[in-house]
Amino acid sequence: MKKPIIAIDMDDVMAAASKKILATYNNIAGAEIQEQDFVGKAYFDVLDKKHTEGVMAEFFKPGFFRDMEVMPHAVEVIQKLHSHFEIYVVSAATEFPYSLKEKIDWLAEHFSFISWKNIVLCGDKSIIAADYLIDDHEKNLKPFRGKSLLFDAIHNQTLEGYPRFRNWKEIEVFFDEIILN
Amino acid sequence: MKKPIIAIDMDDVMAAASKKILATYNNIAGAEIQEQDFVGKAYFDVLDKKHTEGVMAEFFKPGFFRDMEVMPHAVEVIQKLHSHFEIYVVSAATEFPYSLKEKIDWLAEHFSFISWKNIVLCGDKSIIAADYLIDDHEKNLKPFRGKSLLFDAIHNQTLEGYPRFRNWKEIEVFFDEIILN
Repeated sequence: MKKPIIAIDMDDVMAAASKKILATYNNIAGAEIQEQDFVGKAYFDVLDKKHTEGVMAEFFKPGFFRDMEVMPHAVEVIQKLHSHFEIYVVSAATEFPYSLKEKIDWLAEHFSFISWKNIVLCGDKSIIAADYLIDDHEKNLKPFRGKSLLFDAIHNQTLEGYPRFRNWKEIEVFFDEIILN
Repeated sequence: MKKPIIAIDMDDVMAAASKKILATYNNIAGAEIQEQDFVGKAYFDVLDKKHTEGVMAEFFKPGFFRDMEVMPHAVEVIQKLHSHFEIYVVSAATEFPYSLKEKIDWLAEHFSFISWKNIVLCGDKSIIAADYLIDDHEKNLKPFRGKSLLFDAIHNQTLEGYPRFRNWKEIEVFFDEIILN
């Protein structure tokens, strides 16, 4: 039987993008905002929109996506899911041309068990057909035709309508039930 | 109403990959094989397999994918289809890390009307959901859930079981009938 397919987003799901973005923001704005300052809050109630352009400009520079930290427990849980499901990494990346090779290199370093065949670097994710999508953005979760799982992030604190997973251990519990049934 | 989605492969469909590959082969093998030598023949009845590795090695070097020619009539026909369908470029590219940014840059140069949102750089294309796929490889056409259209190429001369289109003008005729109905 064909294994069910799990599509997994990279930024803020596998890679600690918000940590790096927040450090970039603090550097530009001369601020000292921490991730815990966002709990339960709307993103731009915490950040000042006037720095958005400056932060975004960094995404287009070489190196930004290459040295991100791995999200806690992502490697062990995805490695486990890899035995029971078909895993695809699906990252909205084509907006940032330098990010493309950096994401491939980052995955090869931290998730070497994932084949190049199972990596998708795209824009609009509505073209992806899978059974599950783990993502932190409503624009990706909403048009998805399978089961959408919301990965908790500092910018989606007020988003409702999707099962929310605060970390990879909670994702593991969800799929453990599916594996056992 | 939502427009039907056409997924279009890059190499040997939008970009003249075989032309460049054949020039690379001839250079390595000291041969003078032309594209017309393949008509109706199996690929490796024309080429010598012992040079495959040397040719493949070039795909991993910077620059290989950046300067390919555009396939005849590809721009005008895809531009026309763009008004009637949702166009996605879907290229199996993640095997070749340097190709990724080069493909984005190549598309920006020759097909600037295609948004980054509609570009997919992937490995296995079976995860793509679209209504039509225009591709030159059976490995992509076979698992596709929509209508598979085979684009004629020097390496697929003996492939059967798919409607074959020898060039973009033939693709245009096929979709003209759909547009008119």
